[in-house]
Amino acid sequence: MHFMNKKITAQSKDFSQWYLDLIYASQLVDHAPTKGCMIIRPLGYALWEGIQKELDAQIKDLDVQNCYFPLLIPEEFLKKEADHIEGFAPELAIVTHAGGKKLEENYVIRPTSETMVYHMFSKWINSWRDLPLKVNQWANVVRWEMRTRPFLRTTEFLWQEGHTAHQSKEEALEMTLDALEMYKNLCHDVMAIPVITGRKSDAEKFPGAEMTYTFEAIMPDGKALQMGTSHLLNQSFPKSFDVSFQNKENKPETPWCTSWGTTTRLIGALVMTHSDDKGLILPPRMAPTQVVIIPVGPESKRAEVLIYAETLKAELFNKNIRVSIDNRPLSPGAKFYDAELKGTPFRIEIGPQEVANEILVLKSRIQDEKQKINRDSIGSFLQDKLISFQNELFDRASNKQKSLIKKVSSWNEFKNSLEKGFAITSGWCLSPECEQELKKLKAFTRCLLESNENKICFFCKNSSKKDVLIAKSY
Amino acid sequence: MHFMNKKITAQSKDFSQWYLDLIYASQLVDHAPTKGCMIIRPLGYALWEGIQKELDAQIKDLDVQNCYFPLLIPEEFLKKEADHIEGFAPELAIVTHAGGKKLEENYVIRPTSETMVYHMFSKWINSWRDLPLKVNQWANVVRWEMRTRPFLRTTEFLWQEGHTAHQSKEEALEMTLDALEMYKNLCHDVMAIPVITGRKSDAEKFPGAEMTYTFEAIMPDGKALQMGTSHLLNQSFPKSFDVSFQNKENKPETPWCTSWGTTTRLIGALVMTHSDDKGLILPPRMAPTQVVIIPVGPESKRAEVLIYAETLKAELFNKNIRVSIDNRPLSPGAKFYDAELKGTPFRIEIGPQEVANEILVLKSRIQDEKQKINRDSIGSFLQDKLISFQNELFDRASNKQKSLIKKVSSWNEFKNSLEKGFAITSGWCLSPECEQELKKLKAFTRCLLESNENKICFFCKNSSKKDVLIAKSY
Repeated sequence: MHFMNKKITAQSKDFSQWYLDLIYASQLVDHAPTKGCMIIRPLGYALWEGIQKELDAQIKDLDVQNCYFPLLIPEEFLKKEADHIEGFAPELAIVTHAGGKKLEENYVIRPTSETMVYHMFSKWINSWRDLPLKVNQWANVVRWEMRTRPFLRTTEFLWQEGHTAHQSKEEALEMTLDALEMYKNLCHDVMAIPVITGRKSDAEKFPGAEMTYTFEAIMPDGKALQMGTSHLLNQSFPKSFDVSFQNKENKPETPWCTSWGTTTRLIGALVMTHSDDKGLILPPRMAPTQVVIIPVGPESKRAEVLIYAETLKAELFNKNIRVSIDNRPLSPGAKFYDAELKGTPFRIEIGPQEVANEILVLKSRIQDEKQKINRDSIGSFLQDKLISFQNELFDRASNKQKSLIKKVSSWNEFKNSLEKGFAITSGWCLSPECEQELKKLKAFTRCLLESNENKICFFCKNSSKKDVLIAKSY
Repeated sequence: MHFMNKKITAQSKDFSQWYLDLIYASQLVDHAPTKGCMIIRPLGYALWEGIQKELDAQIKDLDVQNCYFPLLIPEEFLKKEADHIEGFAPELAIVTHAGGKKLEENYVIRPTSETMVYHMFSKWINSWRDLPLKVNQWANVVRWEMRTRPFLRTTEFLWQEGHTAHQSKEEALEMTLDALEMYKNLCHDVMAIPVITGRKSDAEKFPGAEMTYTFEAIMPDGKALQMGTSHLLNQSFPKSFDVSFQNKENKPETPWCTSWGTTTRLIGALVMTHSDDKGLILPPRMAPTQVVIIPVGPESKRAEVLIYAETLKAELFNKNIRVSIDNRPLSPGAKFYDAELKGTPFRIEIGPQEVANEILVLKSRIQDEKQKINRDSIGSFLQDKLISFQNELFDRASNKQKSLIKKVSSWNEFKNSLEKGFAITSGWCLSPECEQELKKLKAFTRCLLESNENKICFFCKNSSKKDVLIAKSY
């Protein structure tokens, strides 16, 4: 009940502090005593459950089956694939003692499960008949990060990791792109976050991947947020773990494999994309509570109002609207404040007057004025309003994103725009040398675009081979 | 596709080997390269998802909210509650290095999360208005066990752990019993496993609990399986973590707390309770596939049969039956064998004859003879059959359980019955000395019963204070 005391820094004043103030004040998370970790509180976890529910159904639609692989991976496994261990070694948490003894062989806490999965694939895959093999797990992973921020980068995070094996590179690439499309749909349709999808440069790809596809959102501070990735792996992974199959001609072949994942980071993206200085703003498809009914007026009439509210709640519930009544012993003002802080899309105020006149007072989280609605028509009215609220958030975020991405015509303009907090689309000759120049500006190529509209490279001015999104990043 | 090669030891010959053969042959699990761990394969994980779905809804109905707490707990936390560290110290896995360095302070991988939860409760609980506080998490935990067996006892396992804090001991006890009732309903109604519920003796209770309630099932070998527990904790836990609240009279008070959990062990209980030498038998409410349609007859007529099967599948799907078509390139015999191995409650055989005559051949997993059913009536017929299949499994298991529990009238009879593979109900004077005698027989008091029908103690023959269930155990 201490939310009234929390001050949220204005977004315009300090974006980073606004984010931190907001996620703690709205009780999405709390500080954990474990370095770089977070406690995900009920509202934050409900958002993760919403993501899980939507994504899990889509994963199953792709004929991928959920499994569970062990948390602890023998340390030697990580060393089998050279790029992989090089990429992850600095981030590993290592178990050296267990059961009261020093272990003969250390275990690492999974930073990702490729090595464990390929160990099992080598047992499960023998013939082309065993392919495709498509598994996924919902799990926690640990990567010892130096600089952490709740949801965006934490030592432990929750995610799903899909792993598949295929007879051909073409089929594996199709899977890689299907997963990417699935993520894009989740972001657009459910989270109302517009994302830019495409390939990573060789320098930015996953350790062990032949191609990494990414979906990136531009945050209001102009930084790109990598929301997840989908990899077509190179064959050194299955080869390192002796994964092979007899093809239809009875000859041994190495399968082509993919992996793809997304994480609790999505919640950070959701918060940053839609919220304002008053608190969270949740897209209806993500909101655990879409409509909160708040009784107002004198305590003496409260019982009558609550009976009326319960009937309304039941009616909205039957229309598949997630609705609750806030009957806590707080003032209506405190409840309004709390509903805004928690990002509930709509609130309905009901007092004795509203009961008498069969009129409800409706307030949208993204409009200033209240509306009066006939009690009779509220159900279908809200159903429509929830859809238009969802669409409006996506449109708002799309417009915002467009305004945050600049096209530039010179290296000076490039540097200026980046400094002012813009992301940039530009041509690129694809040379690593030009990409290297970006590091001096703390910027990175985020993803290669399908287009090649900008004829010249952002740095060397040689002819461009592809457009690229460049930004500072989380 | 190697299931045809796997031999399953007869249950009557070697129960323990039967269990192991079955869980690997039916592809519920596979061996993991991590000591004492398992890979939960798609069918096994689907069972866990079924349990999660049912239990999660019931947990939410108890107004408990899901959260997520960190995997890694500072080692010093465990030491704050004396009984707790004494109970868990031998089983801890310890992270000593991370991020390429030796850590200044070690972390333990959570064996359970009380210490982390109470650390947070001390921040979240200030006033009686903050109570009750009820949270739950679905998570993995690690306990370094010496002797492991998939599902029944593994180094890492999946579970849910509920943690609640209340103003009074009465309210906390009510929560403890509500959780126990919830588990009992899950076992009876969904898993078709009869369980015996009651208190643990002081010797058998959770380290840090004032009272531990348990739900136990008797396996076909006469051993008891503790399927989960619900604890009313003693106040030393919140006191160790400085959890207190201002009561309504503005005086500081220590809350009464509970914790309760159940695990992937439930899957082991499910397997052992219902299955036979041919494979798994899944209760319809747990079966990922309730009905499998298997095309039979010549390949030349297969296309026609498949179209017919698809229409049937759609019809059954619309009746909320989980149905699939097995169209793999295998012989019908191999598919029958596989459906029996995987425990699918019903299979439907369709060939050209069945299509022509509008008659379907139905085979129940628990009956030997096939039935012919009119195509027209199959939907409602199956709906009824799935319910009676579920009920029959529960009745079968209840009768089996009754036959496995003996009442005895002397210590000699007691020892004989135990040796022959029975569990025992008996009177008990409640003295720890008599309980201690059981250890010599590798048996334990499993739970105190409500009744006191057996007038004398199983060992000392003094007058009994309570009946008790005694058994060897997993």
